[in-house]
This record gives sequence, C-alpha cells and structure tokens, in this order.
Amino acid sequence: MMIGNSQAANDVFPAIGAQVIIEPGQTPEEVDTWFRILEDQDMHFCRIRMFETHMHRPDGTWDFSLYDDAFRAAEKHHVKIYATLFPATNTVGGVKFPESETHLAEIQEYIRQMVTHFKSFPSLYGWVLINEPGVGGQAPDNAFTRKKFAEWKAQQTEPAYKSKGYARVTFDDQRFLLYYNTWFLDWIAKEIQAIDPKRPLHVNNHQIFVNVAEYDFPAWRKFLTTLGASAHPSWHFGYFTRQQYALAMSANCDIIRSGAGNIPFWVTELQGGNNTYSGFHPFCPTREEIDQWLWTSIGSGAQGIIFWCLNPRATGAEAGEWAMIDFQNQPTDRLIAAGDVQKAVADHASLFAAARPVPSGITVMYNHESLWMEKESQLPGAPTEGVEGRITGAVMKSALAYYQVLSESGLTCDFSEMGEYNWNESDYSGKVIILAHQISLPSRYWDGLTRFVERGGKLIVSGLTGFFDENMHNIMKTGFPLEDLFGGCLKEVKTTAERFNLELTDQSLTLPAHLWLSTIHQTSGEPIGLYGDQVIAVRKPTGKGEVVWVPSLIGMGSWLNDDHALASFVTDETKSVSVPFRFAEQQQNILMKTLQSGDDYITVLVNKSGKEKTVAFQVPDGFQPNVLFNDKSGKPVDCSHVLLEPEETMVLHWAR
Amino acid sequence: MMIGNSQAANDVFPAIGAQVIIEPGQTPEEVDTWFRILEDQDMHFCRIRMFETHMHRPDGTWDFSLYDDAFRAAEKHHVKIYATLFPATNTVGGVKFPESETHLAEIQEYIRQMVTHFKSFPSLYGWVLINEPGVGGQAPDNAFTRKKFAEWKAQQTEPAYKSKGYARVTFDDQRFLLYYNTWFLDWIAKEIQAIDPKRPLHVNNHQIFVNVAEYDFPAWRKFLTTLGASAHPSWHFGYFTRQQYALAMSANCDIIRSGAGNIPFWVTELQGGNNTYSGFHPFCPTREEIDQWLWTSIGSGAQGIIFWCLNPRATGAEAGEWAMIDFQNQPTDRLIAAGDVQKAVADHASLFAAARPVPSGITVMYNHESLWMEKESQLPGAPTEGVEGRITGAVMKSALAYYQVLSESGLTCDFSEMGEYNWNESDYSGKVIILAHQISLPSRYWDGLTRFVERGGKLIVSGLTGFFDENMHNIMKTGFPLEDLFGGCLKEVKTTAERFNLELTDQSLTLPAHLWLSTIHQTSGEPIGLYGDQVIAVRKPTGKGEVVWVPSLIGMGSWLNDDHALASFVTDETKSVSVPFRFAEQQQNILMKTLQSGDDYITVLVNKSGKEKTVAFQVPDGFQPNVLFNDKSGKPVDCSHVLLEPEETMVLHWAR
Amino acid sequence: MMIGNSQAANDVFPAIGAQVIIEPGQTPEEVDTWFRILEDQDMHFCRIRMFETHMHRPDGTWDFSLYDDAFRAAEKHHVKIYATLFPATNTVGGVKFPESETHLAEIQEYIRQMVTHFKSFPSLYGWVLINEPGVGGQAPDNAFTRKKFAEWKAQQTEPAYKSKGYARVTFDDQRFLLYYNTWFLDWIAKEIQAIDPKRPLHVNNHQIFVNVAEYDFPAWRKFLTTLGASAHPSWHFGYFTRQQYALAMSANCDIIRSGAGNIPFWVTELQGGNNTYSGFHPFCPTREEIDQWLWTSIGSGAQGIIFWCLNPRATGAEAGEWAMIDFQNQPTDRLIAAGDVQKAVADHASLFAAARPVPSGITVMYNHESLWMEKESQLPGAPTEGVEGRITGAVMKSALAYYQVLSESGLTCDFSEMGEYNWNESDYSGKVIILAHQISLPSRYWDGLTRFVERGGKLIVSGLTGFFDENMHNIMKTGFPLEDLFGGCLKEVKTTAERFNLELTDQSLTLPAHLWLSTIHQTSGEPIGLYGDQVIAVRKPTGKGEVVWVPSLIGMGSWLNDDHALASFVTDETKSVSVPFRFAEQQQNILMKTLQSGDDYITVLVNKSGKEKTVAFQVPDGFQPNVLFNDKSGKPVDCSHVLLEPEETMVLHWAR
Repeated sequence: MMIGNSQAANDVFPAIGAQVIIEPGQTPEEVDTWFRILEDQDMHFCRIRMFETHMHRPDGTWDFSLYDDAFRAAEKHHVKIYATLFPATNTVGGVKFPESETHLAEIQEYIRQMVTHFKSFPSLYGWVLINEPGVGGQAPDNAFTRKKFAEWKAQQTEPAYKSKGYARVTFDDQRFLLYYNTWFLDWIAKEIQAIDPKRPLHVNNHQIFVNVAEYDFPAWRKFLTTLGASAHPSWHFGYFTRQQYALAMSANCDIIRSGAGNIPFWVTELQGGNNTYSGFHPFCPTREEIDQWLWTSIGSGAQGIIFWCLNPRATGAEAGEWAMIDFQNQPTDRLIAAGDVQKAVADHASLFAAARPVPSGITVMYNHESLWMEKESQLPGAPTEGVEGRITGAVMKSALAYYQVLSESGLTCDFSEMGEYNWNESDYSGKVIILAHQISLPSRYWDGLTRFVERGGKLIVSGLTGFFDENMHNIMKTGFPLEDLFGGCLKEVKTTAERFNLELTDQSLTLPAHLWLSTIHQTSGEPIGLYGDQVIAVRKPTGKGEVVWVPSLIGMGSWLNDDHALASFVTDETKSVSVPFRFAEQQQNILMKTLQSGDDYITVLVNKSGKEKTVAFQVPDGFQPNVLFNDKSGKPVDCSHVLLEPEETMVLHWAR
Repeated sequence: MMIGNSQAANDVFPAIGAQVIIEPGQTPEEVDTWFRILEDQDMHFCRIRMFETHMHRPDGTWDFSLYDDAFRAAEKHHVKIYATLFPATNTVGGVKFPESETHLAEIQEYIRQMVTHFKSFPSLYGWVLINEPGVGGQAPDNAFTRKKFAEWKAQQTEPAYKSKGYARVTFDDQRFLLYYNTWFLDWIAKEIQAIDPKRPLHVNNHQIFVNVAEYDFPAWRKFLTTLGASAHPSWHFGYFTRQQYALAMSANCDIIRSGAGNIPFWVTELQGGNNTYSGFHPFCPTREEIDQWLWTSIGSGAQGIIFWCLNPRATGAEAGEWAMIDFQNQPTDRLIAAGDVQKAVADHASLFAAARPVPSGITVMYNHESLWMEKESQLPGAPTEGVEGRITGAVMKSALAYYQVLSESGLTCDFSEMGEYNWNESDYSGKVIILAHQISLPSRYWDGLTRFVERGGKLIVSGLTGFFDENMHNIMKTGFPLEDLFGGCLKEVKTTAERFNLELTDQSLTLPAHLWLSTIHQTSGEPIGLYGDQVIAVRKPTGKGEVVWVPSLIGMGSWLNDDHALASFVTDETKSVSVPFRFAEQQQNILMKTLQSGDDYITVLVNKSGKEKTVAFQVPDGFQPNVLFNDKSGKPVDCSHVLLEPEETMVLHWAR
Repeated sequence: MMIGNSQAANDVFPAIGAQVIIEPGQTPEEVDTWFRILEDQDMHFCRIRMFETHMHRPDGTWDFSLYDDAFRAAEKHHVKIYATLFPATNTVGGVKFPESETHLAEIQEYIRQMVTHFKSFPSLYGWVLINEPGVGGQAPDNAFTRKKFAEWKAQQTEPAYKSKGYARVTFDDQRFLLYYNTWFLDWIAKEIQAIDPKRPLHVNNHQIFVNVAEYDFPAWRKFLTTLGASAHPSWHFGYFTRQQYALAMSANCDIIRSGAGNIPFWVTELQGGNNTYSGFHPFCPTREEIDQWLWTSIGSGAQGIIFWCLNPRATGAEAGEWAMIDFQNQPTDRLIAAGDVQKAVADHASLFAAARPVPSGITVMYNHESLWMEKESQLPGAPTEGVEGRITGAVMKSALAYYQVLSESGLTCDFSEMGEYNWNESDYSGKVIILAHQISLPSRYWDGLTRFVERGGKLIVSGLTGFFDENMHNIMKTGFPLEDLFGGCLKEVKTTAERFNLELTDQSLTLPAHLWLSTIHQTSGEPIGLYGDQVIAVRKPTGKGEVVWVPSLIGMGSWLNDDHALASFVTDETKSVSVPFRFAEQQQNILMKTLQSGDDYITVLVNKSGKEKTVAFQVPDGFQPNVLFNDKSGKPVDCSHVLLEPEETMVLHWAR
C-alpha cells in the first residue's frame, strides 16, 4: 500500500479518522476536546472543511484564529489534517464550478489565503481540492460555463467514426462536463502547488453509482495524489437495501480503486452517525455496520477512511446529526468500534502496510456512454413499477448484480469504467470481463474487446450491451461490428414480462430474466440457450478466448429476484480464474475480500445473511488462519471452515 | 367502402401498409429492401415522413436524392406512399403550429418544395398535412398564437344563450384551439392544392381519448380526403388494460369514423413493434394482437391501416424500436400476420370493397365541453385513488363503459361527439343515444335532444350528465331546462363511496355505482330505481320516445368493477334496436363487429376472454357462416354457434 | 360567553348560520327565498362575500343593487350579516396581500365604497376583513412585499440571545410574514373603523394545522372583535381520518380559542355540503356529523358557527357543491340538523349565554418556530413512508396525539401557541403543560418554563422538544440550558424503527415510540424508563412542580398505532388535575367537552367508536343529568353512566 508522502511515513495505514467540524461559537477548549477524543481512540487523521465564510470578514480582511486553534490542537494530539477547500457559497455542498471570472478570481484569492497561511502547520497532511465535485449530470448554466463550453467545443475535431453517416447524438453536454470538472480541479491543484508544491492533493466523489458518469478519473490521476469517495448509505446507497450496504461499500470502493489506478484511494467521507432530518433513507449505523464498512473498505484497498463526522454541526442543516460522539462529547459505540479497527490495524502495522487486494482477474465493466444514454432515454412521469430495466439505474444495477454474486463467491473483482482498462496486454489468459447491459459500446473499444478475446480473455456479455455505439446509433440494425466476436447479432428485443425464465442448455440452468427477451441471429456462435425454439444465448471462441453472450437482462433478473441462479452461471463461466482464496460455494449475503501482504494473506469476511453460518473455503495448501479481528464470537473451525455469527465481521491472517 | 381517388381504383381496400423510415445513412439497396419486403407481404401501402432536415441543406439548397430513391423503390415494388409533411423542428412529434410569421413562411416554402418535387412520382398516393396535430389542450404561447387568438376573439359574437345572466366560464382557450388547428390544417391543405390539386389529403390524430377535445372534425371534412388515427397502445391506451386493447382500438376507430362522417378514415399509425425506452406502458404486440387490431379496425370500417413502423429508426429516440422486421431485415411474425390479413382481404376484394359497418342505431356520445370542464376542475396533487370518477378520464371512461357492454353484446355502435350527430331527422324510431356522465350539455343541443325523443328516440342518460351548460354554469340549480324531457331534476349529489349499489326496481337489477349518489326530484317521470327511499332513476316518455335517467355514475361503476350488470341494463333498454347479428347474450371480453356488403354480412370476432368459448348468435334466417380468416383452430359449430379459442380472431362471411 | 356588540344583545348565542352566496343572475325572489329558509330554521346569522367584481362596473361606477336586495331580504327575515370584504381578484380564495401601491389604493377605495354604503343596513352585523389570510408560509414575491420586508427588516434589532455566537438561521421570511399579515389586517380594520367605528371586526383562518405557523393571534386581538376559523374537513383535516373529524374540529376550535384569548371566536366557515370536484378529500357530511361538529364547536366555546354554504355557487369552481339546500331550494337533512341545534340552544338561551368551557388546566402547546424548522428541514422527493416523524406534520400531530387522549379522557384542554400562555402567574398548582415534539424551544420561554415548574406546574415533555433554539441552533450539544429543569440532557438520538417499544419503569407501562430513540444523559433527574440499559425517561422535581421527560416520539407512536398506552401515561401524569367531569376511564374515539354556566354544567358527548357504548363518568356529588339534545336513542342510565349509540351526539345539562 502506497504512502502519500514522507511526512506520514511513520503513520499507520490504512488510517482511520473523522471529520472535525470547526465553526464560530466553538471555544478553544471544545476544539481541543475533539482532537483529544480522536487521539484517545488511536485515530490520527481528520478532515476539516475550511469555510471561507468563517475566515473572510465582511471588510475583506482574513481572520484565521478559529482554524489556527484547530490546527494547533491537532498537532498537540498527533492528528493529521486533510483540509478541504470550501470557497464562500450559500449551498450546503459547496462550490462546484465558478460562476464568473470574478468568482474565479475570488476563489483564487481564497486559495492563496488558505494555502499560504496553513501550509506551515505541521498538522496539515493534504488538501482536498473541493468537496464532492459531482453535479448530477449537468454543468450549471451561466456565462462562465457557456464560455468554457464554447472553448471546449472549438477544440473538438470531427471523429473518425461517424456511425456510417447516420444521425448522431453527440452528448456534448456530458462530454463537456468530463472536461470541465477536470479543468477546474486541475486549475485548483495548480493554484495550490504554486504555493505548497509537495502536499498530497485529494478529491472526494459522492453519489458514485449515479455521478460516476461525469468523471474522467484517468485524467485526474495526473494532478491528484489520492482519489476519494463520500459514501453515506443514507444518501448514496439508494439502489441497495440496508442488508446490502456492505456490498455497496465494497462496490463504491472498487469503482474508486479502479478510477485511482496507480494512486491510492481513500474513503474520504463515511457515514458515522444518525440522520434526523437529513439523509434520503435515514438511519443510524450500528457498531457492527461500522466494522463492516471499515473492513470492507480496507479489504478493497483503501489507504484511509474518514468518517463524517466526529462532532455534530451546530445550526441548521445537519445540526445535531451524523456525529460519532454524543451530546456530552463522549465517544459512542460507533467511535469506539472505529478506534478498535484502527488499533487492530496498528497492531499489525507492517502486515497491513504491505497489503494489497488480490486481483481475481475478473473485471465488471461499465461505461459513461451507457449511463448517459439510459438517462437520456427516460420518459418523465412514465410508470416505473415492473419496468426497472428501462429506468435510470438498470445499467449500473446490471453490473452490480454480477459484482454481488462474485462477492458472494469470495472473489475480489475490479469494477471499472471501460476507459480505465488496459486493452493492450499481450496475454489475457485467466482474465474475465463482464459487460452487463452496457447499452452503449463505443467504437473505440471494439478493437480492444476483440484483442482481449483473441489473447485469451473470457468476455461475458448480457443485457442490451452494444445496442448503441457512442452516438446512440443502433448498431444492431446496420451490420453489428462485433458480430464475428459475439457469434451473432441481435434478432429481436421484445418486452416480455417483469420476470421470465431462460434455459441455458449447456449448463442445465434456468436463469430469471427481466423485461426484455432478446433473441439472437447466431451466425458463427454455438447456441447455448433457448426460449422456446429461439436462440437466446451463444458461445463463440475466438483465438485463445471466447465470448458468452446472453443479451436478455439476466443481471436485472438476478438483482430483482431472490434467485441466485446467476451465481451458478458466473461460477461456471469463470472456472479459469485462479485465486488463492474463495468460498467453496456461493454464500448468499456473505462477502469476502482478500488482501495479499508479502507471502501472507488477509481475508475480510462479513456475514449479512442474518444467520449463524459455517463457511467452507478453498485454501492454498498449508495456510492456517489466525483471527486478526472479529466483533462477535465466531471463529475458524478448521483450516478451511469458519463459523460466523450474524452481522459478524472477521479478519483472518493466513500464513503457512 | 369509398375509394380515395381514381389512381388507387385497382388497389385492394382495406389496405394494409407500414411506415418506411427514411434517414441519411441508408443505402439505396437497404431502401429498396424495405419496399421489397412490403411487396413480399402483398402490402402495397406505406407512409413516409418527409423530414425537411434531411433535404434542406444548411446553404438553403434542397437535396431530394435520398427520398427520390425511396419513391422510386416504392414504384418499383408497387407500393403507394402517404407522404407526411414534416417541417424542420427539433421535437420528436413535429411542428404543430407556426411560431411566427417567418416560421409560417418557412413552412410554406418547405411545402412548396415538397409538393412541387414529389407530386410527379407515380408512387405518391397522398399527403398527410402534418403529423399528429394534437397539443394536449393548449396552443403554444407565442406571438403568433397571440395574434391568431386576437383575430379569433375579435370575430366572436355575443351568444344568444347567456346562462340566465349568471357568470360564465367561456373556455376561450379551448374554443380557440378548435379554430386554430382547423385554420392551420386548412392553410396547409390550400398550400398543397395550389400545386397538386387532386391528391388525397389526410391527417392523423393521436391520443384520441384525451385529445379529441381539441378537434373540430366536421370542419376538417371540408379539406380532408380521409381522416386518420395514430393508435399506439403503449402511448395512447392508458385508460385500458392490455386485455382491453382490441376494445380500445375499436373505440378509437369508431370515434374517428364518426368524426370522418362522409369521408373514409384510416388507422394511419398502428403500433407494429416493440418498445424499449419509448412508450409509456411498454410492450411488444403478439401476432394475435396484430390480427385483433387489424380486423377490429376493418370491422369499424377503416379504409386502410398503416403500421408504425416497418424498419426501425437508427439513432436516438425510438432507435431499434417499433419495427416489424428484425435486425436482419427479415419479417417478424407480426409483419407476416399483417400480410396474411391483407391477403385475406385481397382474396375477397370485391366483398370487402363494398363492405360497410352495419349501424345498430345506438350512439354513445361525448362532447368537447364535458372534457374541458372535467380537466378544468382538477386539483393538482389531490389524491386519486378511490375517486376515479372525479379525475380526468371519467367523462370518457363513462362512455367507454357503455361502449364496452355494447361491444360485448355484439353490437356495432357509433361513438360520436354531439356536434357530429344529425339532430334533424324526421324519425328516430329504433335509435338510441347514450349520454354517460357528459357533465356539460350545451344549450345548442337541448332542442335536438327533445326532438330526438319526441320523434321516437330512446335516450339513456347517466352520471352527472347535464350538471353544467356550455358555460360551466350549473343548470340543475336554476330551473333545469330538460326537466320535462328527463322527467325531473337532480335533487342532490352526494359523495358516497368508491362503490355502492343502486336498485333498479323495474328490472330487479342491482347496478354498481361509483363515488356520487345522485337523487332525483321527479316531477313527471316514473321512478324506476331507489336508494333507500330516495328516487335515483326515472323513466319519462315524450312523444314517440322516452328517456331513462340514472344520474349516478353507473358507467364508472361498471368500468371499475368486474360486474357487468350494466350490460343487463343496456340490453334491456335497447330491445327496440334491430340488427342482423348480435350475441344471444353478453360475452365478457369478446368483441364483435359487423359489416354489410351487398346482401351479405361479415362479422369480426375477437376472443379476449382468455378461455375457449362457444358463442351463440342471433342470426337472420337462412344465413350460413363461412370462415374468411382465423388464426387459431376455432370454427363455426352450427349456423348460430361459433367456437373461439383464447386470443383468436375469426372473420365470418355470412350469406344465404 | 361574550357578546360582540349591543346590536346583537337579544340574539341567541352560540349562533348558527350559513353563507349566502350572492351572484349576478339571481332574482330578488331567489335571494329572498334563501333568507326565508334560514329564518324557517331559526338560523339568524349569515355571511356574505362582498365581491367587488359584482359591484364595481367597468366604467368605474358602483352598482350595489344586487347586494342591497340581499341586505333587505336579510332584514326582512331577521338574519344578521357578517360581510366579507372581497376586493377584485381572479383567485378563488381572495386577495391576501396588496400587489402594489396602486393595488392598495384600489383596495382602499373598495373598502370605502363597501363600508360607506352598507353600514346603514340594519342587517349588517360585522365585517370580515378578508377571507382566509393564510398563504401557506410565504408572502407573495412582488415589489410591494419587498418594500414592506425592507421596512420590517430595518426595524429589527439585534437580539439579546445569540446562540452563544454560533451560526443562526434567522427565519426572516417567516417572522416577516407574522408581521406583514398583522399589518395588513390592521390597516383594513382602520380603514373600516374610520367610516364605521363600532362594528364587529372578524377574520377567519383556514388550514389551521399548517397555516397557524404564520399568525400572530395575540397581536390581532388588538383590532379584532372576534377571531374565526374556516374548518372544512375535505380541505383542512388531511392529518385526520374521517372518524377523527370531530376531534379535528375540537382541536381547530381550541387552537382558535387560545389565539382569541379575551375575545370570542367563531367557526366562520364550516363545511355544510357535498364536494364533487372541489375538496382534497371529497365527501358529503351526514346529518350526524353536522350535529357532532356543531356541538363540538359549542363545547369548545364558539360564539357562533356559519356553514359554507346555504345555497350553491352557480358557475365554475364549486358550482352546485357545498350547499345545505338541494337543487329545489329545499332544506337538506344537514340544514334541518343545523336548525335543530340552533333551536336546542335557543330553548336554553340563558344557560348557553352564560356557558364557558371549563378549563382543566392542561395546555397542549406548539410554537411557530417548531413548525418553521420542521418545514425548513424537508428534503424534496425523499421517501415518506415509515418516517412520518420527520416529514411535515409531525410537530403538530405529536401535540394532537396528546390532545386526542385527553379528549378521550373527557378532559377539555387548551391548545396554545407558547406565546399565548401567561408565563407570569404566581401559582401553577394543578396546571399541566405538554410539549410534544416541539423541536424548537425559543430562549424567550426558558425562564417561563422554569417559573412554571417552580411554581407548581407539571411539565410533560416528549419527542425532540428543545432540540433547537429559535435560531435552529442545536442546544443539546452546547450545554443544554434546561438541563437542570429537565433533569438531564439528550445523550443520543438514533433512527431506530417505524415502531419500537419503550418501558416506563415507574408505571410498568410499554409505550410505542416512532422513528427516533432518544437516550438521556441524566444528571439530576430520576430515571423512570429504560430501553435496554439506556435511560430514555426521567422525572425531575423543581420547586413545587416537576418535569417528566421522554424525548422519544411517543406522541407519534400513539398517533400512528392503534395503541393508546399514551392515555395511561397521560392519565397517570395528570392526576393532580381537578375537573368537575371526566370519564372514569379512557374511551377510545369518544369525545367529551364540558361547559360551565353559573353553577350548572353542560357536557357534550360524541360517540365515534362505531359501537353502542355505556360510558362511566366522574360526577361531582349531587349532580343529575338532563338531556338537552341528542340525535339517537341514547340516554343517561343513572347519574354517572350514559348509553351512547354509534355516531350519537348527546348534550347533557347537569344541575344539582
């Protein structure tokens, strides 16, 4: 696991911390208390939102004293600070984009003031460029945006691929937004580095399952030291049930991990407390959930996790909510749980410092264009019940359905935007790519997909994947460019039923499908599934690899129904994958993440099944388990079986 | 059945065709393929949308070549074209009204270009003035509209009837819209005829159960050759269940047939394929449904039916959807079914050419004003569950409830706006008018209704019919002008329950009613129904006819509940009606339409009951059935009984 | 009971009347008829809306003739008129605020015309300043409002209490609205009084359970003679089921009674007829409901009740709806029921003239700030099912839950805004204040609350009462100012479940709670309830009184669940309260109101339980019941038991 900068070289990673809210009205004693509480829990990281409105006086002068107290208290209590730039705004979430040249200049001056003043505090760890840059798909409409759009538009060149001369939907707004937030974050980064050149730079992305369509993470790696996530179940996990929140946390981390690529990632904001009036799906985490989310994040490779928040905000929105301390400034069971996890990590600091996720070679993929087109296709006011497959979310849920069954097999997979993948490796043997209902397959990936298969990769394709190219042009009707690779072309897509069953003949398996029955005009592929007498699945080897294609919505069929036949299908189709640890068979609602550290392994187990379970593993010869952490009375039964209590999180250290 | 123009005299009618989508990107070979496919199915009609944006270049010049290919391919394959004018717009549905004088001039130039260029192609059959003129009740607000409104307003004269001096709601916007779309369509017609004087002119109306409130069909007859309908169940049949779609198609046709009056009508757009992202209630028709809708339309007297669409659109909205061919350009079962129907018609061309619906003399009526007032009365955000009777749709559904039970009795009835009826016949013996919850009875019909009854007609009135005059003035409270005719006046209307039962004492019948209990202050009528001791129904003879009045919502009571007591009521009250064929008793979810051709008859039967059924008929002496078409293994059992399989459509030719 | 002015000294109070709709189109004979109908029912009061649009001609002149007829007919039939000022508007509800200086001048001229002309009619009783001043929380945005806001804002001084220097949400819009409608009503009052100085002035407030947040009733008392309420169940009782409408009427009256303070109150508009298209939750009152609402209002101390409406409006919105006469101008059972109540009052005129509600000493309290903050906290689009406690309405419903169980114990309590209470009495022995989920406790009440307890009062506190101060600053986290009084401070609030149970250890009682589990850090209080091992309730004596504090939502827990454990809790905690009459035990869905008249008492009983019930009373020694009114065949069984039929209203006169 990489360390962000030398300053933190002695620190324990993965680090666990919490947001300290600093506001006028607080006394220096109170401020000191909060850092002491962190120190008491062995938590040596925090995040502070640097409100311009707290420091920039109406007369134009700056008063840093409140925050100086905080930075000094942090130093005193050995807590490092991720300082979040927060230019003046009357919104809750913060400035996302400048509104005008004047506003940009004001932001510049604010940054200059912040960085110049605070860079010399030893407690400063790094800068968070802005809070949660996501805007839900559309840049704000103002003169500055229009100017930047015009600049961007002028730079665009005619693409080589033009959908054979058919009409094209160019998604300019969406593509511009990818550019625009990258430009703004880069601009902020440069403003900071001009004054404080070596400091870690970070940004946290929220509502990832929706907003991911608007980020160009590979471009961000150039100016970021670490990438981050805000992951608040009450706000961001609307696609999931509470039972699935640990799975959601895992997927959120893996999306960010893939986006981060060669740089580390943090869970920059993790819900640590109760919702009263805030939060869409309000709840209060249990201490078990705190354990589950922390260890799932660590198991996904997070370098650190910072809760929102240690102390509650005082007034208005979120006042008295979200905190990990009670109204008497005493640690809650949630904070104590977090501290215990940090202590468990610290007790095995060198083991964790070297730990990295063990790739299974399986990548669940999504792409920006599919998310854009799905959103573009929505009919305002149309009924949604029974037709989840065609409403916003089906593209992502289809991928999540595979991610879920893989997690329940104990497999750590990658969850990647197609542009994040290396399409130019020389050998893809043992690699699997899953494209579940990615309705757009942009032309720039067609060669890469072909190379992937030719060089030994296994491509599992389902749903309406490839219905469109990047221009929302239907490529099934005009000579499907991947017909040779897939072994056929779509014949028809028919709205059929909320649930219906497909027969996979070569696996004697019945898969639940949702909404659309897609039949195949198979040309070179081998039919492997029927619906009546119609071909609904084919297998097609190419070079050293093969494609398995089931164009009906079997991801959504699994996601919507309590029927995990998809697990059998995926298990069967990923037999070529080699991993050190996995479950002997699928474990519904049990999750496993595997890290490797030197020659040893760490497995994180979370039991969300609601029942006591004895789970069988596949274990490499000679490895013995040792419990690093658990929060119930579960235990290894032998070297390949573990007893888990309901809600238990267990971390095992495997060594020979 | 009338033939639109001499050019088509040799063609088979009713004609069945499909929309051919023409778009840049298509090759001449592809274009040719689609017309060949139509020809292969014996389908010799199509519709083409003449996109200005495809032909009008940015430099102002015109390039017709793509469409020239299509018109030539049509000629080659003996397909006639209904060409839909489609001036440049960025909306999906097309231009509905000009936005300015400049826009009007642009439309004029576009029409000039189209008509001048394409009029000489032999494959051109007729012009569709614009696509779907309906706007959902409100003309767009712009300077041009305001100018036209001012012109219209200046022409309005003070009406003779002024609601006794009470306040009046004048519905200017609604009445203006009737005028305005008539003006615009007429203007387009004149523009075409100035260049191409003899060509059939057509327009297709969509979402008829809602939008019918904004059309003055009798005025349109003056410039149209044929009237048409877009009938897409997924978009337009929201008042119906899928089981009722054949009934909906029948009602849609009959509304258009009544609007068309002395000119023929077409189903200009009929859903032929699947919805993925488009369509409010998405589905894919079965081949049986294709048969059901085609024969129901033919049974209603359609001169032709054109599917939307043969080939799918390529990009963006609707791309890859709606088509009757698959992605390999092969006919689907739906297209083959359509071709088979066309062939069955062609096999009996002279029989069908002379066929006309057999009027039963029963007319289910609605009027514009009732639809306007119902919409005007809606409370945004108010609960809708359990109070369907007061939300938008109850006026139309109340009429449909009667239409349904009449259809299930095997009776072909008319479905007419009150202004479409001939109120000046000398004898109405054997005629029935049904006014179900037509909340407004405009004063201009009061004399006509009285004449109708005096001269032998039977008037069945239910629901809050006549609660208002045309000015939304409540005429029950100020001396009900039809008190003598109806036999009384409303006493009270009381919100009672989602469902409650009324006793019709003279028929020993219990009718389910909905929402409002309406009691009658009977003056001259005979009480025929009670609720407790309150009179809720009266019968009043006048002259040679009579009125039966049940002012509670018995139409909605029937529509909302699976209780067809309404059928018994209607059967009993329409005994005077004389038709050659009808069911011996009501057949729930079985529909019959009867055509007469010379001395012979054709009956269309559609079994939507979900069960095998043997249906008994009333048959004129000596007539024997001969199967012209069926798509299952049903058959006549004897000369008055037919066995129908579930979903079966059967067409019988009856001759002596 | 106070009498509004000497002119009415001979009239019977409580008075019952109805709105007479006057509109152009009516004949003098019709107008006369309606006043005759009132007289026939012994109803001698009415209200008339003085539509400017009916009297102000387009040429600027005024024509009062239509209304002159009405005023003369009223005089002829001995009916007194509350004349509602209704300046020209195209809204249904009337002008709420001036739109401009010009508009204000127009209103001024309209008032001058009305008052000058009509003041001399003997039938004029009083002026209603405007109809229903409520605007749903936000003054309309226009230049006039902005000017008045700026004036108001300039007058505001820095408050002494500043939330310890923390950020403050100042609720300027809400506080301005309190000022603004007070200013406007006062301005109207002065305009009237300049011309007609001694006339009763009145205003009616609608949608009270929501709009009460925008009224400063104590300020209004300075210019009003009587305060009033519009209480239409179909529009205003959305928080209640139909079974609870009598309870809602009672609460509505008691809120207005508390607002009125030293002046009398009227139910100025009470639903008297059917809804067709109007009304959110449409229904038609039964005659029993008319009795229930009238007697409940009288039992709450109403000086008069005026139905909406006698005769129906003629055109457009509400046409043919709401009336108490039928379409033949005959009285309905509802009007006859109202007349019978008026006759029962008249038969005991002196008894009722001296009757006043018997205070139990229990006050259920709400405050403006809690309602503002709850509304401010709403998340648009967030799910509402299962989380009623955090959506708009929970503040009011929590108070209503206590009000309900007190009513079901036969106790007449006060329902007051905190500012309406006298916080400076020398002795509060036997007094109880209930603060149920009043999320804001403004600092100006802290001393008063302390005095109340010290001087013998009992304070029952539940829900998140006091979570915020008046600035939406969370006072639990920064040294809770009422910690000594309450016996502790909140420890944590945790979203827990839609329903969960709390154990009150000192009463061996299980209380259902909703949504949030609030635990207490008890300092000086005695723990009286546990959830597991956490303290969830404390009791703390101070001076001569005490506080009982259960900070979870036990009000909502009772309101949402059919579990009246709250009644046991409240009964136990209010044992110190002394009243002459109450139920021996709680009677679910039976309501009692008690009036005292001299040495005698009147009790109003309403049985909404749906069952025949024999109810036991606590009765002072020697009192015997005498039935003044009942509408079923119930009767007193002995001097402390009464048999009530379902839906029965019974009024008993108790004397020794």
